[in-house]
Amino acid sequence: MPKGVPLTVPDDGLTTRQRRNAPVLGVHTGDGKGKSTAAFGMAMRAWNAGMDVAVFQFVKSAKWRVGEETALRALGEVHVTTGAGGPVSWFKMGSGWSWLRANDSDGDDHAEAARAGWREIARRLAEQEHDFYVLDEFTYPLDWGWVDVDEVVETLRGRPGRQHVIITGRRAPAQLIEAADLVTEMVKVRHPMDAGRKGQKGIEW
Amino acid sequence: MPKGVPLTVPDDGLTTRQRRNAPVLGVHTGDGKGKSTAAFGMAMRAWNAGMDVAVFQFVKSAKWRVGEETALRALGEVHVTTGAGGPVSWFKMGSGWSWLRANDSDGDDHAEAARAGWREIARRLAEQEHDFYVLDEFTYPLDWGWVDVDEVVETLRGRPGRQHVIITGRRAPAQLIEAADLVTEMVKVRHPMDAGRKGQKGIEW
Repeated sequence: MPKGVPLTVPDDGLTTRQRRNAPVLGVHTGDGKGKSTAAFGMAMRAWNAGMDVAVFQFVKSAKWRVGEETALRALGEVHVTTGAGGPVSWFKMGSGWSWLRANDSDGDDHAEAARAGWREIARRLAEQEHDFYVLDEFTYPLDWGWVDVDEVVETLRGRPGRQHVIITGRRAPAQLIEAADLVTEMVKVRHPMDAGRKGQKGIEW
Repeated sequence: MPKGVPLTVPDDGLTTRQRRNAPVLGVHTGDGKGKSTAAFGMAMRAWNAGMDVAVFQFVKSAKWRVGEETALRALGEVHVTTGAGGPVSWFKMGSGWSWLRANDSDGDDHAEAARAGWREIARRLAEQEHDFYVLDEFTYPLDWGWVDVDEVVETLRGRPGRQHVIITGRRAPAQLIEAADLVTEMVKVRHPMDAGRKGQKGIEW
């Protein structure tokens, strides 16, 4: 898509440059495909812009997102060896929350694991550790009441510097949508599983 | 998303394995963000699965998709140097249709350039040159009548082997949607440009 021209110029006291450089809070929601995939595509762009990219995967799954993880980690390795792009970090919920000490194990308590993930993200945001955050499937612990939506929105609104955050998942809470700059709803029109197909490597994961 | 369980098992005479391995024709359409970005995210997955990935960009743009192109080309280079993943090819319309001979220049005739691109894609599909094709913004030359929709649909339906094709862009023609296995509509809920922001590197391109 070509670089857009704003429809209106807001009366917000900011210069064009200040608005342009404003950090983005994005939400990809809806029942269709592509919510996470588009977020990882954005992470590729952010990598290319030299940003420090961090992915946090909520919701345990047998398949996780091995394709995207392997590809983005490979890009992180390209950064380490050649200096191109930016660094990439990838954290999976539970045992993958690698900052936890061994005796902090969150075991099978998924609600506590989700809260531990959010606490760490909030700490990193406060310390501006990364430039581009993907909070993959983070809407679910919000929807299930495991993590407090109002606290998340307050932390995101008040985050310092220029940190971009993309949150994916179905049923994004209204307060989060209200706070976001960029909201896209992915709507399912047709899906192979409707025709009795199962997922396949390289397409579904 | 976890690997899904089909809702119904169709009476199509295929085994589960045959259905699972069926090549996918995907369409990302709608006015929202993420159509191309999700396609490039899928390309990362395909790369990780060792597929031969080819991107064809229709519609000239000052910015193209430099972030995604650089990142996917870097992954292609990882394949060349380490054997991980698969090869990546990237073609831009016009001068970027590198298979054209110098005296075949399609100059400023965008309709002819689009047709030349489609002819080449049809040839590659017939010869099974790649495993995963992204036809980025290909809906526009279809919508504008530059490339014949019925011929495209017939070629895609009859493509041999196991070649996945993802087509992006607004206003996907009805015949294409009808022929597709996977159709997602990206719906704009809110976009920073609504608030008078211009695009920024690493986010918009």
